[in-house]
Amino acid sequence: MSNKKEKVREITPMDEDFSQWYTDVILKTELVDYAPVKGFMVIRPYGYAIWENIQKEYDNRFKETGHKNMYFPLLIPESLLQKEKDHVEGFAPEVAWVTHGGDEELGERLCIRPTSETIICNMYSKWLTSWRELPYLYNQWCSVVRWEKSTRPFLRTSEFLWQEGHTLHETYEEAQAETLQMLDIYREVAENILAIPMVVGQKSEREKFAGAYATYTMEALMYDGKALQSGTSHNLGQHFTKAFDITYTDRNGEIAYPYHTSWGVSTRLIGALIMVHGDDNGLVLPPKVAPTQLVIIPVAQHKEGVLDKAYEIKKQLEKQFRVEMDDSESYSPGWKFNQWEMKGVPIRLEIGPRDIENNQVVAARRDNGEKVILSMDHLNEGIEKLLEEIQNSLYNKALKMREEKTYIAKNKQEFTKILETTPGFIKAMWCGDVECENKIKEDTGATLRCIPFEQEDLGTHHCICCGKEAKKMVYFAKAY
Amino acid sequence: MSNKKEKVREITPMDEDFSQWYTDVILKTELVDYAPVKGFMVIRPYGYAIWENIQKEYDNRFKETGHKNMYFPLLIPESLLQKEKDHVEGFAPEVAWVTHGGDEELGERLCIRPTSETIICNMYSKWLTSWRELPYLYNQWCSVVRWEKSTRPFLRTSEFLWQEGHTLHETYEEAQAETLQMLDIYREVAENILAIPMVVGQKSEREKFAGAYATYTMEALMYDGKALQSGTSHNLGQHFTKAFDITYTDRNGEIAYPYHTSWGVSTRLIGALIMVHGDDNGLVLPPKVAPTQLVIIPVAQHKEGVLDKAYEIKKQLEKQFRVEMDDSESYSPGWKFNQWEMKGVPIRLEIGPRDIENNQVVAARRDNGEKVILSMDHLNEGIEKLLEEIQNSLYNKALKMREEKTYIAKNKQEFTKILETTPGFIKAMWCGDVECENKIKEDTGATLRCIPFEQEDLGTHHCICCGKEAKKMVYFAKAY
Repeated sequence: MSNKKEKVREITPMDEDFSQWYTDVILKTELVDYAPVKGFMVIRPYGYAIWENIQKEYDNRFKETGHKNMYFPLLIPESLLQKEKDHVEGFAPEVAWVTHGGDEELGERLCIRPTSETIICNMYSKWLTSWRELPYLYNQWCSVVRWEKSTRPFLRTSEFLWQEGHTLHETYEEAQAETLQMLDIYREVAENILAIPMVVGQKSEREKFAGAYATYTMEALMYDGKALQSGTSHNLGQHFTKAFDITYTDRNGEIAYPYHTSWGVSTRLIGALIMVHGDDNGLVLPPKVAPTQLVIIPVAQHKEGVLDKAYEIKKQLEKQFRVEMDDSESYSPGWKFNQWEMKGVPIRLEIGPRDIENNQVVAARRDNGEKVILSMDHLNEGIEKLLEEIQNSLYNKALKMREEKTYIAKNKQEFTKILETTPGFIKAMWCGDVECENKIKEDTGATLRCIPFEQEDLGTHHCICCGKEAKKMVYFAKAY
Repeated sequence: MSNKKEKVREITPMDEDFSQWYTDVILKTELVDYAPVKGFMVIRPYGYAIWENIQKEYDNRFKETGHKNMYFPLLIPESLLQKEKDHVEGFAPEVAWVTHGGDEELGERLCIRPTSETIICNMYSKWLTSWRELPYLYNQWCSVVRWEKSTRPFLRTSEFLWQEGHTLHETYEEAQAETLQMLDIYREVAENILAIPMVVGQKSEREKFAGAYATYTMEALMYDGKALQSGTSHNLGQHFTKAFDITYTDRNGEIAYPYHTSWGVSTRLIGALIMVHGDDNGLVLPPKVAPTQLVIIPVAQHKEGVLDKAYEIKKQLEKQFRVEMDDSESYSPGWKFNQWEMKGVPIRLEIGPRDIENNQVVAARRDNGEKVILSMDHLNEGIEKLLEEIQNSLYNKALKMREEKTYIAKNKQEFTKILETTPGFIKAMWCGDVECENKIKEDTGATLRCIPFEQEDLGTHHCICCGKEAKKMVYFAKAY
């Protein structure tokens, strides 16, 4: 197993240096590379194929719930960005400014969209006239730019790909229902397709979106015990619709301001996939999102009939699954095994002369290393079942990991000790005061991730920080 | 038919003012709107749905021919843009420059990609090592920015959506085969899906892409007799690979530069759709690209059973087709007929009490206004056949239009007269000299659209401009 040893040297072990492990995995599996401009990333074909699968899952669900896609310009005039007070304060420090078009200096600076509320509201105010046109249920897929000082591919980059939904409604209740519906779609795909369990809830005032009335979030826990905010959905109330003077004639013939939501998920989800499922040998991809669900590797492929049979099987399987064949002669089967293992392909199918004799193939599971003998007679059914098992097993493993790394702290001493010794989610009681939130952040580096919808009794009713009466059970963690 | 009259007033007749007709159609059908920044467009949901259909058709074919998608950064350092001499000369005057990130002035200006050859070559030079990795067959879907002085939505805008393929090959011949293969895929989708006949051929040196060895193009003729360059495919030779020092170890163990292609189609194709098929009542969309292939409009919908039956039919049809139901009570059927006609929906299905009695529906064709009675018993088959007929009929109509507007000029006098009286494609002989090309442009405003693959004998062998011996039969036209 000399190949194995080589591999181990290639990727830094997770428990030795998790940050280096992440960098090794994303570069060596060719998911991504660093761009010439600091903080920007190139998403390579293998990484982009994962994004395409994520996009497809979300886009289908957006459309099923009545949303349509559209496209708004990349550039936003400075004067538009400034219309909503909280919004400009939140985003102005991190936008990129275009000052020249060709040889000419522009009369007004334009920012590259950091998010599109302002330009979309500007157009909505032009379009909307009557309650008959509501709700507006629109979304766009695009890239956004936020000038970040400290970056990591997928997790925090100066440009990333995402979708941003922007809807208008007649009532606050409808906007709130939309906000929660979209959060639930986010969670459902994250859990069922990406196999990542999520904690869902509301952001505190300190952590909410710049300009929002209320922000809801789904939070995942990574292998190293840090949290990753994985998707947010905002009830924007009438903050923007008033600032941008979006009005319409309501059912009573009165002029009214609509209620407004926005919501987004991004290429950050790929970072979550890597850090939740990966291991010392590289990526581990859930079958439903894997660009390649199974790879066929012929063994002793020079022997008569092996390649023919391998291609026959490929043809049969690729009607139903995403299949690759690796019959290159430049590398040994062992080397290939390691490569595809590193790439996280859920199933490796080995086919050699003896397998053909026995009318079988050997299926090796990436998630737990087990080898399963499958009969060629019912191969598609066998593979389907195995992929399902792998998908479920990855979710359960991730859930178990999160549960093991979720702690309860009843006082600040416990809180600090947990963070120092066994980082993870910390459930604690909170008085609702931003002062306490700030103090925890300053003293420990942990932030309030969310006020979960599922409140629990922790056996104490005192704020973790000030000791006063607590209003909510919340999740704290250090976060990406 | 008072509604009809209202409609005629809404959209300027094509023959009265084609430019105003175009503007009326794109705005009133809500395909697009003008953005706050001059020269930029907002692609509204109806326009974006057309783009999604175009994307899907091309993306499937790119993948079938072995290409994978990826994503490169929006911003390119000025120093990279300058590496290929012809390329920077062509693009530098029309790029947007980012000079500030947040509050800080950047050390080096960054341009928003006008096209991505330079940044992609920069990364390819880092990645490529061996002939075993070739060919590189990659593509990206994104937006690009080119600072245009005179703009029209879809046809020429400062930002547009497109795809750009970027491939590397071992030999010139392979790169040339790829260049022509992609041009043929462009043509095939344009003709079979968008129902737009194309002239395909090579661009002259004057008209080729900045930095290309050879550019190939597909050119369509619009209703007003002007040409629209609709997609281009470039054999870039080794111009960029040498400028960016992309090298690899070839089959003989020598260091070599690969051969390079790039190719793109854009949202401009939506402009072609509008100007080839549209009429005085608005859009006419070919079924294969129409976001809505048929709309069901219940007649006397308050009568018992009408709405139920209409919904039953919708449910049955939407398994196979893209169907909308318009059962709003705010508008009369006549008003609805006009709206959906303007939107270019290929088939309108009318269902009223008498139709239900007779076990039939009335299908009105958008392309020629004909009404067809379809039995409910074989409705799906009936609709399928009708959509096919409409698709073919639109292509044939467009081909006939182009043939009627394609002329032969044997000398400059004929050439000028055609342009002044009956604008269209002009086939003429050309000596191959750029001086003649420039002179024709200066004197008449027409440009050399392409040197078609299908050369014809025009009965003269003298250059249309200088009268010397001609080398090629070419197409001239005024163009968008």
